[in-house]
Amino acid sequence: MQTIDIHTHIMPGEMPRWADKFGYGGFIHLDHHKPCCARMMQDDKFFREVEDNCWDADARLRDCGHHHVDMQVLSTIPVLFSYWAKPKDALEVSRFLNDHISGIVQRYPDRFIGLGTVPMQDPDLACREVERCMGELGLAGIEIGSHINDWNLNDPALYPFYETCERMGAALFVHPWDMMGKDKMGKYWLPWLVGMPAETSLAICSMIFGGIFDRFPKLRVAFAHGGGSFPATIGRIEHGFNVRPDLVAVDNKVNPREYLGKFWLDSLVHDPAMLRYIVDLVGRDKVALGTDYPFPLGELEPGQLIHSMDEYDQETKAWLLGKSALTWLGKEA
Amino acid sequence: MQTIDIHTHIMPGEMPRWADKFGYGGFIHLDHHKPCCARMMQDDKFFREVEDNCWDADARLRDCGHHHVDMQVLSTIPVLFSYWAKPKDALEVSRFLNDHISGIVQRYPDRFIGLGTVPMQDPDLACREVERCMGELGLAGIEIGSHINDWNLNDPALYPFYETCERMGAALFVHPWDMMGKDKMGKYWLPWLVGMPAETSLAICSMIFGGIFDRFPKLRVAFAHGGGSFPATIGRIEHGFNVRPDLVAVDNKVNPREYLGKFWLDSLVHDPAMLRYIVDLVGRDKVALGTDYPFPLGELEPGQLIHSMDEYDQETKAWLLGKSALTWLGKEA
Repeated sequence: MQTIDIHTHIMPGEMPRWADKFGYGGFIHLDHHKPCCARMMQDDKFFREVEDNCWDADARLRDCGHHHVDMQVLSTIPVLFSYWAKPKDALEVSRFLNDHISGIVQRYPDRFIGLGTVPMQDPDLACREVERCMGELGLAGIEIGSHINDWNLNDPALYPFYETCERMGAALFVHPWDMMGKDKMGKYWLPWLVGMPAETSLAICSMIFGGIFDRFPKLRVAFAHGGGSFPATIGRIEHGFNVRPDLVAVDNKVNPREYLGKFWLDSLVHDPAMLRYIVDLVGRDKVALGTDYPFPLGELEPGQLIHSMDEYDQETKAWLLGKSALTWLGKEA
Repeated sequence: MQTIDIHTHIMPGEMPRWADKFGYGGFIHLDHHKPCCARMMQDDKFFREVEDNCWDADARLRDCGHHHVDMQVLSTIPVLFSYWAKPKDALEVSRFLNDHISGIVQRYPDRFIGLGTVPMQDPDLACREVERCMGELGLAGIEIGSHINDWNLNDPALYPFYETCERMGAALFVHPWDMMGKDKMGKYWLPWLVGMPAETSLAICSMIFGGIFDRFPKLRVAFAHGGGSFPATIGRIEHGFNVRPDLVAVDNKVNPREYLGKFWLDSLVHDPAMLRYIVDLVGRDKVALGTDYPFPLGELEPGQLIHSMDEYDQETKAWLLGKSALTWLGKEA
């Protein structure tokens, strides 16, 4: 049984000081203040303490060995998206991050699969970088945020990006970021505990109601954190669609429940009852192990929740641990 | 078996033109543009079309008869909260709304139970109006929003309000409003479908992590819409509490899961699997029928979901349909 973790984050251990190069701030760099640890800094502001498994492939492989993870899908830490920056600068940052991920994948092709990041604020530049990621860099797909500045994921400005991903066979991984309400949730880590699940529901609703899955039927999309609050509120969302089509069904007349089973969710729900609920909702072939490695809000023992499900037979566990990941990635076992 | 709907909204059929009286706008009035219907207007801006069951007790009783609802708990439509207004003006609006609800309760004491609204932006004024509601007006509790302008529900400024509610035995009903992210969710009714569930999770998290349930242990609190996204994300929330107590457990060291069963949720989840999930999570004695009557996003046949649960025995249905409501309200059957 193959174990593939579709939701892990990485960044380069050394990054250019983009602020110096571009002439304005807001970018992330690492302050290596002690061995095996670093501070992620946004200009002079402390963002998060990280360990070497955040940038070092060999440290990650040690953890994978310990946890019996066969392959990790690598994606950028969302705070590095740089969608807010000037497009050509965001492209340069993206290329740097993608080159790093590609290098690791090429070094350990049996252990890592890479997703790129692209400057979504400029869809033309984004499409060119998707092509580079899927061509010369040998990546398997693209990670994007739950919205792109003022665009939600239904925005027609993003159609060329979706078209390019579909044409290139890029798996799409949608991750919450820039959380709604964050300015009013200063305490208790609430942007991560309340805002992120809402962002993911925003992303799924925007793609469904915007008709993205119909317009790009071959697009393979996975959403982080078990789809956030979307699965648990599908009843409310469907009811809203039914009773106020004048507000909800303006771009797409298809009931949102029809899309269950057409996209993937990762398994990061931290709760057996909710894992059971999402598997029942979208199918075992549409839920894939995701852990948010190496961050503490993730599943600290990758796969532990899936392994703990006594009611699941080996075939179901095989889907959740690896086979769903492979079909999402468009790869063979 | 008694059927009590804890989540219904009402407003007076005629309201003063507050903008003319107070000298600034933002308040709601009804434009009775045709028989049995009216437009809710915010100044000159159309907010929502409503029918006479939104203000007329007799129209509501006809619907209750049709749907076999024995009692409705009446609360203000959240857009009328007026927390943004000058406190003394919000008090005047609150008193007008509360007098209206009290009049209906006094006219039909066996059919309606009333909740008041209070000017939460000024806790002293709010406490005085809580006392009036629970004293001379004969109401059973107070409805509040999921946050109060820049205060979340953990804010110490609100302690006197909670203390007064606890002392007066007022049931507290927390309803989402002023939805996070609304400015970035212009399409597809997303503030209602995505923002509202997040608001309710914000409210529950704020009260738990702020230690409100410990500081005011006799406070009886119910949350609308099945607790929004909170129940489905309790795994993530608990995990966040465990791994980053430095961020989450700053005011309260108790695991959030310990509070399950200490507050009430209404049953408005539009989905048998989610109703089963929340009943399993907090207990049948902590889930109470709520429909959002008379609005279309509510349960259009009050009680239908509960009645449809073949696996529930009569005793469980009795709790969900009425007994949980009575214990929340502090009333005998």
